[in-house]
Parts: sequence; C-alpha cells; structure tokens
Amino acid sequence: MRKIFIIGIGAGDPDYMTIQGIKALNAVDVFFMPDKGADKDGLQKLRRDICARFIEKATYRFAEMRMPERDIRELPDYKDNIDKWRAAVTASYERFIAEELTDGQCGAFLVWGDPAIYDGTMRILDEILAKDSLAFDYEVIPGIGAVQALAARHRVPLNRIGESVQITTGRKLEAGWPQDAENLVVMLDGRQAYERVVETDVEIFWGAYVGTEDEILIAGPLADVAEKITAARETARQTHGWIMDSYLLRKREAN
Amino acid sequence: MRKIFIIGIGAGDPDYMTIQGIKALNAVDVFFMPDKGADKDGLQKLRRDICARFIEKATYRFAEMRMPERDIRELPDYKDNIDKWRAAVTASYERFIAEELTDGQCGAFLVWGDPAIYDGTMRILDEILAKDSLAFDYEVIPGIGAVQALAARHRVPLNRIGESVQITTGRKLEAGWPQDAENLVVMLDGRQAYERVVETDVEIFWGAYVGTEDEILIAGPLADVAEKITAARETARQTHGWIMDSYLLRKREAN
Repeated sequence: MRKIFIIGIGAGDPDYMTIQGIKALNAVDVFFMPDKGADKDGLQKLRRDICARFIEKATYRFAEMRMPERDIRELPDYKDNIDKWRAAVTASYERFIAEELTDGQCGAFLVWGDPAIYDGTMRILDEILAKDSLAFDYEVIPGIGAVQALAARHRVPLNRIGESVQITTGRKLEAGWPQDAENLVVMLDGRQAYERVVETDVEIFWGAYVGTEDEILIAGPLADVAEKITAARETARQTHGWIMDSYLLRKREAN
Repeated sequence: MRKIFIIGIGAGDPDYMTIQGIKALNAVDVFFMPDKGADKDGLQKLRRDICARFIEKATYRFAEMRMPERDIRELPDYKDNIDKWRAAVTASYERFIAEELTDGQCGAFLVWGDPAIYDGTMRILDEILAKDSLAFDYEVIPGIGAVQALAARHRVPLNRIGESVQITTGRKLEAGWPQDAENLVVMLDGRQAYERVVETDVEIFWGAYVGTEDEILIAGPLADVAEKITAARETARQTHGWIMDSYLLRKREAN
C-alpha cells in the first residue's frame, strides 16, 4: 500500500513545524513538489529548507511536478472554471503519484500553513480515491496557519468574548460585509477588497510574510491605514515578486 | 523587565508542539498554572507532561494560581456576568505575576489549542498593561487548535472552494444558523446545540479529545448521527469527568 502525508508546514517560519510534522517528514521517501510558477519560488525554498533542517536520514528525494497552467483568478465564472482546472490537476496528481511512488513507499505534500484552510490537496486526493483506479492511504498533519501567525504577531485574539469569527476571501468580502460578522479574517485577497469596505468603525490587523524575516505588520483604524497597506503591498510585491498576506477586520465594540 | 510567553500547546497531542513553542518553553523560569477546577485536571497534566518532555534545563518551576470561582455558564446575562468575573480574574493575574515573577525573569501561560481562539489570556494581559501598574513584555506563540486537529483527523477541509468558514459557539448556534454560512465550526458547546439545528441536508464532523488516545470521531448526516454523538458525549463525560469537543457543520453542496 502507498502512504501519503499531507503535512502542514506552517505559515513561513520553519520553527512553526510541529513534532508531529517532523516525525512525518522523517517517514517520507518522496516529496511531491507541485510547481505552481515563478511566484511560488519562496514556498519551494521553504519546503526544501524545512526538509534539510528536520530530516535526519539521507534517503529521500524531491519529485517536481508540472502543474496544468492557467490563471483562474480573473475568469468570470470562478467556480465553473476552477472546477475544470481542478479536474486537470487531479489527473496530473494521479499520474504523478502512480509514477513516482511504488507500493510500500511513503510520499508527502508539504502544504503552506494548514491543510484544512484554503488548500485543495485533501480534495484532490479524495477525488483520486473516488475513481478507484489508484490505491493509497493518506494522513493529514495540521500546521500553524497564516491566520494564527497573524493573530500571534499582532497579539490580537481573533474574537472578543462570546463572538464568532468568519474566515473568508477577498472575493466574498467584495460582495459586502457578511451579516452579523464581528470578526472577519480575509485570505486570498489579491484585489485589495479592504479598500472598498464601506462600514465605518472597523479596525484592521494586516500582515505579510508573517513569521519570516520579511514580515510586515500594519494595524489601525481601516480608514486611516488602508492606503498605507496598499503602498506596502505594492512595494513588497515588487521586492519579492510575490506576496502572502492576510488580515483581520474587526468592528469596534458597541459599548 | 519581566517577560511573559503565551504558548499555544496544541489541542491534546504533545506532538502538536511546535519548534517555536519548545524554544519558548526552554526560556521560561516560571509556569503560571491557573487552577480552573477538577474538570481541568487533564489539561494540567498535559501542561506538566509537555514541560517534562521538552524542557532540557532543570531550573523551572510551576506556580499554581487559585482562580476566582464562579460558574458563569448558566447565568442569564452572559456578557455582563463574564465581564465582572473577568475583572476579578485580571486582578488575580496581576497579583500573581507581581508575586511570582521578579524583574528579568521569564514566565509563561500554557494555553490549550491556540491562544487566538476562545482564550482570554491576551486580553487579560492587555488589561493589566492598560492599568500601567505592572510592567512586562509579552509574546504569543501560536499552537495547533482544536478546529485544525478535528479537520486533520476527519480528513475534511474546513471549506470547499471559494467558501467561507465561520467559527462560533453553541450559544450563538442556538440563535439560528448564521445567514449565508456554508461551513460552521462550533466550539464551547456544552448545551449540545447541534440537536436543535433545523436546517436539513447538514453534515456533521464531530470529535472529542482529538489527537489523544481517548479520541472519538463521529461523522455523517446530522439527522442520522446527532443521537449517537449525544450518547458518546454522555459516556465520555462520565468516563473522564470532563469533555473537550468541537464540530464542523456543513451544508451539502447545492449542485
């Protein structure tokens, strides 16, 4: 039987690795490295650095995987287009696993942050298993997500007492502030949706490359710091070629 | 200057500890151990086990702290009562830190799960700092939260593509399913609010003591498994004297 780990490697700082994650790394024969384009070079380096630092055996290898290329972000019917793109991705993954992993071997996907939030690896593996053409077992290792890293570095709880927290995308935020939401964590916001929030009395806690030496943190009343964040995003994207950022929006307490 | 760490120790499995958390543990002179009553014995044991396993120096100690006692859960005005209770807690914390930690020393609170979700330690320390009567610096170390552990063990992403996730409480769920919420994570539900969800076509992924040897996982259509979960909760509570559980509710996909 083939075994696959989906390992959450945390949101940037290699020290976010858990003992459970390190144990899993050390059981792996082949690390699957999806190539998602030039903007993900930083992430590939983080994966290799983590392996070099935490794996104690010499007998493991990386298998680079060419992903179907397509920029799905700007297409009109997001869900339909992403479904088609993912079918191609699933087929690639299946071929790749079948070719690179022999029976009895252990493979792994190293997922930035936590595999349970805005990551498709579990779904892809479930889709392959549902086809019943390739047998394997898989296990998920949670990791420190961007949201948690952001909250820790800002020293801000995600919720005040008794309140709920909503984790959402820039795309959804553009459709309006969700009803009754007091605390809104926004990920995957390439369109700077915070600029178009019409609610007043909102605080923002923003961060990019959180937990790394390139970390940038900005917090304050949204109306006061939105421009500063947009400028920081632009500079950072030019400097690094890519940006990983997220933010917490919070309505100020009623009383 | 006094230094305090708020260290997320993860949701039950000592292997959820991060390298960052272990480094912080090894810098600590005094571990503050809030005594929250008999039902938290399991948590105190986890704290002590983690220290014994990961700390390499001999010179650290535990300082047990008696918390103001009050069962706030059943009082009618939840927010008002919890505020009063917390003022007493904050005063206790301040006295305790002043007495147990001398200038230049390092103290720590070991928080179950992640310090940014449904934990009051950051807020308490901010309240003390706002009084300006006791000086210290503090740092937050994120940990693997119950929600992430639950998702990993069930091998279920918290969101489907493009969807948002709401993390909420049993109390809030009782007021009704939040508008537009597709994925609902419920924590702190001592009242089994899932039993009174009226929406149909809802799946539940429930877990207790996730990541420990006592782990119980139940998943399925809510209408089919709600009774089974209630029975499992009752048995578990009798066996262990306390229960730590959470669950994900998900509306089945429209298409």
